[in-house]
Amino acid sequence: MTDAPRPRVVIVGAGFAGIACAARLARQPVDVVLIDRRNHHLFQPLLYQVATAALAPADVATPIRHMLRHAENVTVFWDEVTGIDRTGQAVLTGTRRVAYDYLVLATGARHSYFGRDDWAEHAPGLKSLEDAFLLRHRVLGAFERAEMETDPAAREALLEFVIVGAGPTGVELAGAVAELSRRSLTRDFRRVTPACARIRLVEAGPRILPAFDPRLAAVAAENLADMGVELQTDTRVTEIGAGRVRLGETELRAETVIWAAGVQASPAGRWLGVETDRAGRVAVDEALRVPGEGRIFVVGDTAAHRPGGAERPLPGVAPVAKQMGAHAARVIAAAVAGAAPPAPFRYRDWGAMATIGRNKAVAEIGGLRLTGFAAWLLWSAAHVAFLEGMKNRISVGLSWAWSYLTWERGARLIIGSGEAPAREG
Amino acid sequence: MTDAPRPRVVIVGAGFAGIACAARLARQPVDVVLIDRRNHHLFQPLLYQVATAALAPADVATPIRHMLRHAENVTVFWDEVTGIDRTGQAVLTGTRRVAYDYLVLATGARHSYFGRDDWAEHAPGLKSLEDAFLLRHRVLGAFERAEMETDPAAREALLEFVIVGAGPTGVELAGAVAELSRRSLTRDFRRVTPACARIRLVEAGPRILPAFDPRLAAVAAENLADMGVELQTDTRVTEIGAGRVRLGETELRAETVIWAAGVQASPAGRWLGVETDRAGRVAVDEALRVPGEGRIFVVGDTAAHRPGGAERPLPGVAPVAKQMGAHAARVIAAAVAGAAPPAPFRYRDWGAMATIGRNKAVAEIGGLRLTGFAAWLLWSAAHVAFLEGMKNRISVGLSWAWSYLTWERGARLIIGSGEAPAREG
Repeated sequence: MTDAPRPRVVIVGAGFAGIACAARLARQPVDVVLIDRRNHHLFQPLLYQVATAALAPADVATPIRHMLRHAENVTVFWDEVTGIDRTGQAVLTGTRRVAYDYLVLATGARHSYFGRDDWAEHAPGLKSLEDAFLLRHRVLGAFERAEMETDPAAREALLEFVIVGAGPTGVELAGAVAELSRRSLTRDFRRVTPACARIRLVEAGPRILPAFDPRLAAVAAENLADMGVELQTDTRVTEIGAGRVRLGETELRAETVIWAAGVQASPAGRWLGVETDRAGRVAVDEALRVPGEGRIFVVGDTAAHRPGGAERPLPGVAPVAKQMGAHAARVIAAAVAGAAPPAPFRYRDWGAMATIGRNKAVAEIGGLRLTGFAAWLLWSAAHVAFLEGMKNRISVGLSWAWSYLTWERGARLIIGSGEAPAREG
Repeated sequence: MTDAPRPRVVIVGAGFAGIACAARLARQPVDVVLIDRRNHHLFQPLLYQVATAALAPADVATPIRHMLRHAENVTVFWDEVTGIDRTGQAVLTGTRRVAYDYLVLATGARHSYFGRDDWAEHAPGLKSLEDAFLLRHRVLGAFERAEMETDPAAREALLEFVIVGAGPTGVELAGAVAELSRRSLTRDFRRVTPACARIRLVEAGPRILPAFDPRLAAVAAENLADMGVELQTDTRVTEIGAGRVRLGETELRAETVIWAAGVQASPAGRWLGVETDRAGRVAVDEALRVPGEGRIFVVGDTAAHRPGGAERPLPGVAPVAKQMGAHAARVIAAAVAGAAPPAPFRYRDWGAMATIGRNKAVAEIGGLRLTGFAAWLLWSAAHVAFLEGMKNRISVGLSWAWSYLTWERGARLIIGSGEAPAREG
């Protein structure tokens, strides 16, 4: 297209970090190739609402190439990366080599079962749309199966929901399942009473929402209790099997166990052949580069950035990922332009929020702490504002308004396996 | 619940016929059990819009038990029927027997490949939400793969779409794929030009829309041609394989082949052990009963009703199914009440409609024939009106308004396999 070949930047992963990086390189004199194994960017903060049937998948996901349609120097490849040839400066997929001058790895994280991968089958986690479908299938399917079950003990196990891990995702899931059972489903069943479902939120640490101010966490705990969620802190999951879970020494029959406890970074570190920390993250320097590699950046959940040598790296949340992606783009743009490198990466922490249910949320913004309706309104407004695309904003706003007025959940479809539950039971 | 045991009506299938039957039995002195292997009722007339990324799955599907939440005498089972014990008067699923006093079979139809079931893998059809996801995956995936393909012939094959069968579904799919390629995707690709895609609509008969007035079909054919769809009538598909299709004697490389040609009724006839016609349908009497069986009804696409001994049975369309379901309910209600049976079933034909694209449709209503914008407006209004639930009506109306203004398609997600195309290619 142009005369001289322009430097090529390959970005792997179109999460918050990868998209931020590509968007910021849009008007720079570089060619960008963005590779992702999905065709869509996912707004993960609302994924739990897809899993609990409040939102449809299209509400929280946007085709990557549509997001970048105005970025003429960005080419999007729907492909799965399998490795990196550092010597040859190329990214490898199953069928092709994609050469790079600069490489940005933004490949995110998956759940971690702390070495017990056999638990994954019985206690799925929530990272992708497929995960959300599976969880929705399990949760709604449990009520469906209970409706047909004649054995009281088996029915009780079907109405037992255990959520492992009380970070924001676990708290939001527990609150959503509680509302689903206590409000949305009440009229729809004849033989079971969905409101009798037991919802347990299990946390190994001493309190829920460990990253939040203790006072806010206490309010959230109270809110959850009001909604009928049973909190079990200082409780370790010691075993998970088909239809059962062991909490400490107590064995429990529970057909639905959801994992929200740990994450493991993507295999980017393995591709690079560099050391990673226990969670699989790659240590990066102040410019977010792999140490000793001037042209390879790692950003988002896969990066372990310890500002000023801090003990804990920055957390794997959307704002960190976005800022990292943008920073890597700035460093590359400066290098290409022959300009001085930007100042070291510094995370601007605007705060944190978690929602528990209708009119109930907690938020820390700057020094400000909010709870209840004010926090919930802020949470709702912020999430609609940060969504990608006006259509999704309207659609999510409409779905929420509808649910708010009717308590209905508009997306209660069980899709995918196409199986009726009898085959499972 | 009540004193004397009330007659139990078991309905199998929650399509248009089954739902209409259950809804009409809602206030009758019977207990109704409605069994379906899905948890949702599907508004099939708009399914092609899910396949072509204009609508989200939740827009055209509604949880069955939610639709019938006010029908207190209706219990919904999410289960798969495997057979019928006529002597014992029970429906069999994998794990249970459901006894009936009256049985209504409304189990619909699947595609038929006229004995070439091996074509199914290469030329999927469109009956369920899973089918729609698969088609969406194939259609959007073809453009994605073309973007990465370097071999010109392979790229051309990726941009070749063949739709087999020019009934309403085939026509609507062809029009939608044409709009997708010529309008919605134009800005999103860098290496391929989606508008160069070839879309062929292949029909074995002499013209498209054989059930419509020839003048309307001619207008529809002209509309399709204007949109860039190539019509091949009098053309028989003689072979379909991976990435290729043979039309008559001509072999064609085409990565995307969609089957809209034939249907085959559900196995209801086999369950009953009665004879069926060539399409697998069960002949029914004027009360929609299996001849010689006073208490077993077959309705919808699985029934072959020949009013007045007509040569062709009533077509497998939504209005026929709805009216049949309601009629079976009336016959049962009369029998339970000890009243005189209603008059023989008579289908009221209100007409037919098919849409081709934006501002383009054909409709026959009563003696009236409409084309162009008027028909399209009528088609849109009727489909929104017939949708289940106010939320879906708002959501579909919003999606259509958005697409109308922007040409965008809001539901361009590839979900399910989670695979990048490299694995396929």
